[in-house]
Order: sequence, then C-alpha cells, then structure tokens
Amino acid sequence: MSGRPRRPVRADYRRFFPVQTRWSDNDMYGHANNALYYQWFDLAVNLLMIEEGGLDPMNGPVMDFVVESGCRYHEAVGFPDELDVGVRVSRLGTSSVRWECAIFRRGGEQAAADGFFVHVFVGRADQRPTPIPELLRAALLPLVVAVD
Amino acid sequence: MSGRPRRPVRADYRRFFPVQTRWSDNDMYGHANNALYYQWFDLAVNLLMIEEGGLDPMNGPVMDFVVESGCRYHEAVGFPDELDVGVRVSRLGTSSVRWECAIFRRGGEQAAADGFFVHVFVGRADQRPTPIPELLRAALLPLVVAVD
Amino acid sequence: MSGRPRRPVRADYRRFFPVQTRWSDNDMYGHANNALYYQWFDLAVNLLMIEEGGLDPMNGPVMDFVVESGCRYHEAVGFPDELDVGVRVSRLGTSSVRWECAIFRRGGEQAAADGFFVHVFVGRADQRPTPIPELLRAALLPLVVAVD
Amino acid sequence: MSGRPRRPVRADYRRFFPVQTRWSDNDMYGHANNALYYQWFDLAVNLLMIEEGGLDPMNGPVMDFVVESGCRYHEAVGFPDELDVGVRVSRLGTSSVRWECAIFRRGGEQAAADGFFVHVFVGRADQRPTPIPELLRAALLPLVVAVD
Repeated sequence: MSGRPRRPVRADYRRFFPVQTRWSDNDMYGHANNALYYQWFDLAVNLLMIEEGGLDPMNGPVMDFVVESGCRYHEAVGFPDELDVGVRVSRLGTSSVRWECAIFRRGGEQAAADGFFVHVFVGRADQRPTPIPELLRAALLPLVVAVD
Repeated sequence: MSGRPRRPVRADYRRFFPVQTRWSDNDMYGHANNALYYQWFDLAVNLLMIEEGGLDPMNGPVMDFVVESGCRYHEAVGFPDELDVGVRVSRLGTSSVRWECAIFRRGGEQAAADGFFVHVFVGRADQRPTPIPELLRAALLPLVVAVD
Repeated sequence: MSGRPRRPVRADYRRFFPVQTRWSDNDMYGHANNALYYQWFDLAVNLLMIEEGGLDPMNGPVMDFVVESGCRYHEAVGFPDELDVGVRVSRLGTSSVRWECAIFRRGGEQAAADGFFVHVFVGRADQRPTPIPELLRAALLPLVVAVD
Repeated sequence: MSGRPRRPVRADYRRFFPVQTRWSDNDMYGHANNALYYQWFDLAVNLLMIEEGGLDPMNGPVMDFVVESGCRYHEAVGFPDELDVGVRVSRLGTSSVRWECAIFRRGGEQAAADGFFVHVFVGRADQRPTPIPELLRAALLPLVVAVD
C-alpha cells in the first residue's frame, strides 16, 4: 500500500465497454459491493472475446480459467450510475493473458477502480493449458500495452 | 396453464428500458437463470422510480416492498443478448402498485418472458403502508393501462 | 389478492433444505431482494435432483427449463438469517414438474414466502421436451402432494 | 507470478466459516465464477463482524469500505460443493484491517483459492475514516497472525 501506484486515467486503456448498473448491484451501504467490479470486468472481456475473438463458451474447443485477480477501489460507484470498463492487455503469453481493467463513471476521467485478472486457456476435453486460438490472439493483439 | 394467455408484444407496454446482459447472468445451461428476469425487472422499475419519481432508496421517507411476483418464460435469452424491458402499470392503488413487465430481445416483437410484481410502499420509520408520494404517483400515471 | 390463500406452514412441505444467506443477498433496504428467493428455490431443487435424482447439468442427456414461476412474500428475511426451503411437488407430468417451495426462518413455523416453478425437461441435443428420466422420477415421487 | 507463494493450508487460518454453494454460483463452464469467491469472503467476514463484533450495517455509527482485494485460484470449485472459508487478520490498524481468506473444500487440507481484502472503517454521517469500534476490535484481535 505504500508506494501505491497512481490512479489510472482513460488514456491508460485501449478499449471501453459501457456497463449498466443494476438495483441488485448495491449492497446495504448503498454502493456496489467489491465483488461486482469483477463481474463488470468479466462482462467486458467476455463480450470482446466472444464477439471479436470467436470464443464459444458453450461449445468451442477452449475454455478460460481465471488463476489470479485483484482490484483497487478509489471511489464508490453503484446503481444507477452509468459506467465504462476500460480494457488493456499487459501480457499475452502462449496460453495465458493478463487483462488490466478499470471502472470509469460515464464522463469521468480518473478510474473509480482498477484491477486485473489472468486467464489461462485450457482444452475443453482435457482441461490442460492450450495455445490461445489464432482468431482470439488476433483480437487481443491491439490491446497489448508496454508495461511500465 | 390451460387457457394460457397469449404471448405479449411490444405494443402492450408503455415504456422500454434497455438491459445489458452479463457473463454472470448465464447458468450452466448457457442461458439466463429464471431468477435473473426479476433482477432485470427491478433494474427498469427502480430506474424509473428514482430518475422520474423522486424515489431515494437510501434516505427518502418511503421504501417499497414486493409482496408478490411472477413470470412466464417463452424463449431462452442470455449473455451476450441485448434486451429491453417493457413496463406498464395495471393497478395503481393508494399505497400499492402492480407492475407488469416483459423481456424483449432488441429488435424482437414478441416477449421472451412476461411477468409482474406488486409493490407496497411503507414508511421508512414505521414500516407501515403509506400513500405513494405525489411525485412518484405522477410518474406512474402515464404507465397505467386498462386491464383486459 | 382478494381470496389470497393462507400462509403455508412446515407441515405443508415434504422435504427441507437449509439455506445460508449472504451479505450480497441484501439490497439497499437491508433485506433479501425478491429475486433471491428464486435462487434459493433453485439451490434446493437442483441439489435434490443432482444428489438424489442423477441429474448431471453439464453432461447428462436432459436439461430442465423453467417455463413459469411465482412467489408471494409474507415477511422480510435476509442476511444473516438462517433459512430452510420447504419443497413439494404438486404435479408430476411426463416431461414436466411443478415444484412448490417455501422459505422458513430456522425455527419458524409459518412460511416467510411461498412460491412455485414449472420445469420442462428437454433433450440436450434437440432441446425438445423429453420424458423425465426414471431415476429422477423415482426421486420426485415421494414429494408429490395431493392438490387442494 | 514468479516466486508465487505456496498454496496455504488450513493451519494457516484462525477461524472457519461454512459456505453453501448455489446453483447460481456456477457459470457456463460449470464452476463458480471468479467474482463469487469475493462474495464468499464477504459472507464469512461480515458474519463474524455482525455476530461477534457488534457491527450493525443498516444503523450503526460505522460502515466499512473495501479499498483493495485480490485472489489466487488454485483449483476449481462450485455447486454443489460444500466449502469452508478460512479467515485471519494480517494487519489491524487504527481504522483499517487487512483480511486474508481462503476457500477450502469440506475435508480438503489445501486451499482451493486464497485472497485478501482491506477494509477501511468510516463514519456513517461524514464518510471519513474513523477508529474501529472497541467491541469490533476485540473480536478481531484473536485473528491477527504474524506476517511472514
């Protein structure tokens, strides 16, 4: 926590996906619970992988498992806020990818939260790590950023 | 189930609210679980009550409790479908309202599901039924339909 | 709502399944949201079908779709309450079953909520209605009650 | 990820809370989604704070906000698995606490996942950091472990 990295801004991300909040996102304190941010990240990243990378979660040859995730929360958000998820890729390996995502209020410049998660791709049949399919890799390449 | 009412169409509803599906909406069968439809209804109806009817869920003088709900499912939907919630009011009482909602695929004419729920408004302090505030009632009036 | 049926008691149900509430079940009003009750029903009924009826949601030959659901809410519950779901079957057809479920507080005699849902079983490959497998039917038979 | 810490075992935690999985916890891949683990952590930690530490989320003088969270996933779990959440405290400050939690299968010795989150306590009225109430601090003290 000492040496806490700076709060990211929109220019730090390559793509943005709108996120609609829900009544059920807010907890007893009137804001979105910390777990919801990971659902919002999932929404954005899976939309990208399905619509642009050819991922077929129910029947395709590969599945993605999350092996690590994390998030820092800078500012409370929740229903009925309108949000955007910023997305970039900080490491694109043979069978894994590190996604870095952030939550922005619609119109906000500084991230309300920023986080990451690491996907490992496995074969549906054997559940063993497998190379990221070419179509999917092509969709991820424009999102790769140089790591600080 | 005999004498099952006809499947509603868009013209049966007065207002429409876009709903964004999420990865987490789908269950093991690859479609949204039946409980999710009620979250989508809540999203639309609370958005309307907060943004147009002055409802303040955390600090306002009234709260709304659901005393009954129901839904009929005509066609499976789920992530990453884009949806609309159609909304109408079929009974507007002194302290209660019966909402009728339906789920449409973006561009779809026939409802994928249609349901209802009944809100009773209570005072925050005493939790006893209380008249619907005037501003909220004014927002609901244009949604009232004649019941068949 | 006139002629509203009486509030059920434990003796009206054949089996009981404990339900653990979660922080995330409660909404801004401090109680479980209406949609959660349907998740609790699902938890109980699927546990029974998987552990006693041989249902294999990911790979088995049949899937179950909900075609109708409903719930009446008598008393607010939520985290950290300890709950039980009472379960009975009020109609067991060739390829469909009508489940009736109720939520009880641990130690409570009267239902905090009671509801139902109708499952239709379909083949995984063709998504067409199919007879309920024999092992599953055998698990459901002891739950069938005479309808009032 | 290089120098990845060892996978924790039960002896690394001070308290254990049972967690019941739900049908709705599993995603299209048939296992609990990564975001669910954070809901399970919340369930355990809030139960402890409410039942043993006097926290009153709806009306008490303090609220807790999560400022950071993270999780490493070692092994897939999901409905209908029976789980335990192990809990310890690795830093107890004046107004903040770092919780470390792990998910174990019932009967499992090695963690299926391990994570952390940091709570900052704020006054309900001013939303500014405030000392952890004495009763709550007393409940947390036995959970504090020496950090490696």
